[in-house]
Amino acid sequence: MSQVQFRGYAITDPKKWSDFSIIDIKPKTFEETDVEIAITHCGVCGSDVHMITQGWGEAPFPLVVGHEIVGKVTRVGSQVKEFKVGDRAGVGAQVASCYECRACKSDNENYCPKSLSTYADKYPDGVVTQGGYSTAIRAHEQFVFPIPEALESRYAASMLCAGLTVFSPLKRNGAGPGKKVGIVGIGGLGHYAIMFAKAMGAEVYAFTHDKSKVEDIKKMGADHKGDFAKELAHSLDLIVSTRDVAEGMPLQQYLSMLWVHGRFVTVGLPDKPLPQLTAFDLNPNGCFLGSSHIGSKKEAIEMLQLAADKDIKPWYAELPMKDVQQAVERLKRNDVRYRFILTQDIA
Amino acid sequence: MSQVQFRGYAITDPKKWSDFSIIDIKPKTFEETDVEIAITHCGVCGSDVHMITQGWGEAPFPLVVGHEIVGKVTRVGSQVKEFKVGDRAGVGAQVASCYECRACKSDNENYCPKSLSTYADKYPDGVVTQGGYSTAIRAHEQFVFPIPEALESRYAASMLCAGLTVFSPLKRNGAGPGKKVGIVGIGGLGHYAIMFAKAMGAEVYAFTHDKSKVEDIKKMGADHKGDFAKELAHSLDLIVSTRDVAEGMPLQQYLSMLWVHGRFVTVGLPDKPLPQLTAFDLNPNGCFLGSSHIGSKKEAIEMLQLAADKDIKPWYAELPMKDVQQAVERLKRNDVRYRFILTQDIA
Repeated sequence: MSQVQFRGYAITDPKKWSDFSIIDIKPKTFEETDVEIAITHCGVCGSDVHMITQGWGEAPFPLVVGHEIVGKVTRVGSQVKEFKVGDRAGVGAQVASCYECRACKSDNENYCPKSLSTYADKYPDGVVTQGGYSTAIRAHEQFVFPIPEALESRYAASMLCAGLTVFSPLKRNGAGPGKKVGIVGIGGLGHYAIMFAKAMGAEVYAFTHDKSKVEDIKKMGADHKGDFAKELAHSLDLIVSTRDVAEGMPLQQYLSMLWVHGRFVTVGLPDKPLPQLTAFDLNPNGCFLGSSHIGSKKEAIEMLQLAADKDIKPWYAELPMKDVQQAVERLKRNDVRYRFILTQDIA
Repeated sequence: MSQVQFRGYAITDPKKWSDFSIIDIKPKTFEETDVEIAITHCGVCGSDVHMITQGWGEAPFPLVVGHEIVGKVTRVGSQVKEFKVGDRAGVGAQVASCYECRACKSDNENYCPKSLSTYADKYPDGVVTQGGYSTAIRAHEQFVFPIPEALESRYAASMLCAGLTVFSPLKRNGAGPGKKVGIVGIGGLGHYAIMFAKAMGAEVYAFTHDKSKVEDIKKMGADHKGDFAKELAHSLDLIVSTRDVAEGMPLQQYLSMLWVHGRFVTVGLPDKPLPQLTAFDLNPNGCFLGSSHIGSKKEAIEMLQLAADKDIKPWYAELPMKDVQQAVERLKRNDVRYRFILTQDIA
């Protein structure tokens, strides 16, 4: 039996969105396909803030968020093949799917209609999923990722949501040599998008209105600062937007920059509706507006290997987990360059 | 020199959108790359109604509309290679492009930013383009399509806009064996979409709220009447929507029927904005919303050959050109199964 205790930094009062206290949490009922991990690092994702501020709807409290998790395996079920006790392993934003549908059988388990989120979701037996601002987590092997030897845990953690969420649409929409890729919104997701798109061989245009980030985007590898100048009309093959505020989003302008059948993929998920479009916004270049939902395990493994091979590291600030309030409050006001990583201090 | 007279049924008073009178029209200045056609047939397209009712914005009057044109070649410029006097030839919704840009050089001339529409547009020398409810038209060879021997002119005419507008997105988005394709809106465009998608080998779901069309869609070749039933969730690879009314459009429901990364392509161009979306409408299946603009000459030739080979004919009603008022008024109230073809009666 496991010696691990399950405790985490929880929001208990929905009116106090950044007021955390340590509680005992009920883990997933252990199954023979499960891996249990003692958490060493957890990234702080914009989704965590959306959830605890209830921007995406009601959340079940008390709630422990966090879905950029890395740690050491403490227990494996008898049917687990890829992990053994002591391995480093990670968990991202998804912890379960049906394992049987067309999506699950085609490396699209991230689009399984029965997928469960790492926190604020519910297993069939009623256990509520709790996230990684905590001591430990259990998940089905399908949603546990091996961490390459060459990649430090503090670097890998935030790749498991922020990284994968941009890697998947870059990969699936052909980012690579000869392609021009725009990245909108330079935060946790956007800074990974620049680094990955560049590592994949694309020509990268980074769009930011924040002058203080212009030096940074160049250092991350962007070839150009994106501008709304007319010369970009009809030129970009793909835009990945990480912007999660809909108000004032110049969506029509971005669409007009796309080459024929180019795609604008928003991985940012604003609380509010997107700017309303007419067919005439899409028609002149036959472009597409879409979205994307994290990524598959296959893509996660490819991404982690790319990061290890090309020495890609997040730009990050590290805090002990007890400083989580500071982390979420600063993230909410965009005061981080570019990701907080929390380190374990309960266990 | 040409003996052709240029006269057409025009709207002269913007307040009387269906009141046509015959006027003399000024043709395009003849160039050595041009083909001149004496018109025998012209289809009546929803775009014609949008234009003369000014649903898409101000139009230049007097105006002759019509862009589904077939006739006989009466004159060719010295640089014309594909046509000789006496050939049957057609013109669709586009009459010019720049011939030099990346779009023009990649069989995407329908997306050239300098493309000119067949009517209500302006050549660099100031001549306003006038459409096919008329005796004759001139266009650059690039925008003139040869009509296969086996395809009657009365059948070919409405393929040149209605047909091509749906053939292009079907082709470019992979309609074919093993793919499930939804068609929304069963009018002039929609009925072609069913027939072409079926001829291309796809499994076809036709969506209509009009019970009186259910028998028709089966005869056109639809495999299924599309329903908003849950069993279609996450299943269609492509939806081509010809619906040109935005009000009450259940866009979110259509999007939810798409398989992972499936595409909803609206070729209907409603006057009003599309229903407003949130990223959460696009995120669960990573689907795409897009549009498409007619098609390329290469695709037009492929479509016409497919129609000739598979004996595809429009469902149509034929009227002499003098009855154009009846045609546009009935089209506006959807009282046609499924396309009007006007036959020449001026020349």
